[in-house]
Amino acid sequence: MPELSIPVVEGVRLASVPARIKDWERNDLLLVELAEGTSVAATFTQNTFCAAPVTVAKEYIAKGEVRALVVNAGNANAATGVRGLADARATCEAVADALKISAEQVLPFSTGVIGEHLPMERLLAAIPGSAGQLDPAGWELAAESIMTTDTRPKIVSRKLMINGEEIAVVGIAKGSGMIQPNMATMLAYVATDAGVTQSLLDQMVREVVAASFNRISVDGDTSTNDACVLMATGARGEMISSSESTGYLELYRAISEIHIELAQAIVRDGEGATKFVTVQVDGALSSEEALTVAFEVGDSPLVKTALYASDPNWGRLVMAIGNAIQGELDTDKVEIFLDDVQVVSAGGRASGYQEQAGEQVFSKPEFTIRIELGRGASSEHIWTCDFSHGYVTINAEYRT
Amino acid sequence: MPELSIPVVEGVRLASVPARIKDWERNDLLLVELAEGTSVAATFTQNTFCAAPVTVAKEYIAKGEVRALVVNAGNANAATGVRGLADARATCEAVADALKISAEQVLPFSTGVIGEHLPMERLLAAIPGSAGQLDPAGWELAAESIMTTDTRPKIVSRKLMINGEEIAVVGIAKGSGMIQPNMATMLAYVATDAGVTQSLLDQMVREVVAASFNRISVDGDTSTNDACVLMATGARGEMISSSESTGYLELYRAISEIHIELAQAIVRDGEGATKFVTVQVDGALSSEEALTVAFEVGDSPLVKTALYASDPNWGRLVMAIGNAIQGELDTDKVEIFLDDVQVVSAGGRASGYQEQAGEQVFSKPEFTIRIELGRGASSEHIWTCDFSHGYVTINAEYRT
Repeated sequence: MPELSIPVVEGVRLASVPARIKDWERNDLLLVELAEGTSVAATFTQNTFCAAPVTVAKEYIAKGEVRALVVNAGNANAATGVRGLADARATCEAVADALKISAEQVLPFSTGVIGEHLPMERLLAAIPGSAGQLDPAGWELAAESIMTTDTRPKIVSRKLMINGEEIAVVGIAKGSGMIQPNMATMLAYVATDAGVTQSLLDQMVREVVAASFNRISVDGDTSTNDACVLMATGARGEMISSSESTGYLELYRAISEIHIELAQAIVRDGEGATKFVTVQVDGALSSEEALTVAFEVGDSPLVKTALYASDPNWGRLVMAIGNAIQGELDTDKVEIFLDDVQVVSAGGRASGYQEQAGEQVFSKPEFTIRIELGRGASSEHIWTCDFSHGYVTINAEYRT
Repeated sequence: MPELSIPVVEGVRLASVPARIKDWERNDLLLVELAEGTSVAATFTQNTFCAAPVTVAKEYIAKGEVRALVVNAGNANAATGVRGLADARATCEAVADALKISAEQVLPFSTGVIGEHLPMERLLAAIPGSAGQLDPAGWELAAESIMTTDTRPKIVSRKLMINGEEIAVVGIAKGSGMIQPNMATMLAYVATDAGVTQSLLDQMVREVVAASFNRISVDGDTSTNDACVLMATGARGEMISSSESTGYLELYRAISEIHIELAQAIVRDGEGATKFVTVQVDGALSSEEALTVAFEVGDSPLVKTALYASDPNWGRLVMAIGNAIQGELDTDKVEIFLDDVQVVSAGGRASGYQEQAGEQVFSKPEFTIRIELGRGASSEHIWTCDFSHGYVTINAEYRT
């Protein structure tokens, strides 16, 4: 990733241009044009202090057909009050003028610093020219133009055959800080040229986001601007209208895999991250309990600094488990495995466990912490990263 | 702090000795002897994976009269299974033998690394000798002997007159990591020679802990071993049995102040902390909502790294507020002040706010972030610290 050859999604054209949203020399404005008849479904941040573009995008997507997306990096247009809302609407107007559609058919997105007004003059000046650069092969540039503190672009694609017709699915995402449970996601855009009815696409985006972007944690903070958009242009094949339709399962699997790979890519590129860790919780009373334990482990600064240090400090794991579990916990039933190495049995150090074996696992760039609670039959997993000096450096210096 | 002259608490004698719990040359075992008739009340960690000594201390304190405490630093005796429980009981037995009391009159406490068994041979060997060193003037050595990653001892005292009799209150505490809301506290021991009935003392410890140790945050992790013990020997003055009793208010104020100062001392000495910050939340719908917002702000890694960088990145404050508030938030009513500098009004940058003014506040070693939610009449405050390279270094290297 980025992959060698990103397929075209028929019905989608993209343009990335430099609008100087910040004082930098790079593409920071992305325009996405969608063919008429495209179904668009989205999930947005649960943060109640959500950004102006999120408010406007939620309003517009509810009104009907979406024909374009406009995304800027470098400024989140969040906590910008009435003027921020006006700026988001004006951005949509400008895109609508350039594409000869209506403003309410344009969804706006912003990512970057909170609390500053968009440089509207430069932003609006860049839009007409960007329309002339729309290109079906613009995915890779798009993945780069939406980056902020990301160190690499995130793009995943699949090709599949449905009824003898080749279908493409392409997704891009950005995000490396303010990443947490209960979010909708950071910014992610996934498009296919398959046709999917609106109601089925709405259901699909909820399900795949729950199993992908809502399973990751970098720092436990939920952004004001998270959004995930799933688009189906219908340019190829027949309309998929239910889970019984031909090709539904194949398409669902491809879309789901792309979401999971993008979500994992965000964790791998987490601010300062040096490790990619799966936290698997088994034997919980409920799915909710399993997720709570997994996130308590994956979000704990003490656990994350131990990951960074390649120190299999399993005491911090049991501390996090004890914080997550409400009511009574029979600690004698708790087991913990680092990949295949059992470190905890009966709530204490496993007999025969050698520190060196745990260190070997914790020294790997990727591994799994598996927790057996012995309370029930529910399992869940999340993906997290470590907490390094790099994280502190990035976030202590981000604005300056 | 430590203060120049720590008064004696009549009825309390302390001994600190080196037991080589870890491979270090320092006092790491504290014995506290209490006069007959002393009332003892305590709160313990809410972590369900609580340590062996916590389990034993809860059991013994429920049985009746407490005559001694034994505290070791360097090993938490947590996640140590059946053997850990046996070790805690054996420690109490040894103290009981030395002091000619029963094991159930001894409360055990441990702090340090999780998941390792206590070095019982060395620990038990140190106890008989320590009994011979019990000294009413042993408070300062005691404050030092219970330290782990603390960089300085924490001790606070007050003298007050009740009915013409001089009463002393002395408290010590330790703790600089695994500090979070919903805890009982780290280790804290507060003693007075006033007399207070058991039921009144139980009520006092709950109230003063809620307003002190439960209002601080260093890293959002709750320890397996937290405990706070309040002791009233009754050696001086008359028994205080209700909030109507003579001297109750004065004693309550002194005890409350000592708890708050010790709690604040833990934050000031937070792992890697360079800033001491009060987060004050006003205008909340409920006390609970105010506390949730305060802790979301005080626990956010993004806010804490901004504190470290002296960067008044108020966008991260509104992000944290939006994560804390459930349901609808009228962001137009939100105001934020850094000390006297208003940075946010009507949900956005306050008109007239100059970045330089915010930086001046954030550069101070102590300041207040005040958030006005404009939703109701409830207020709460917490104390927190920043998140520095020092935190990562300490926690990435603690065990090694």
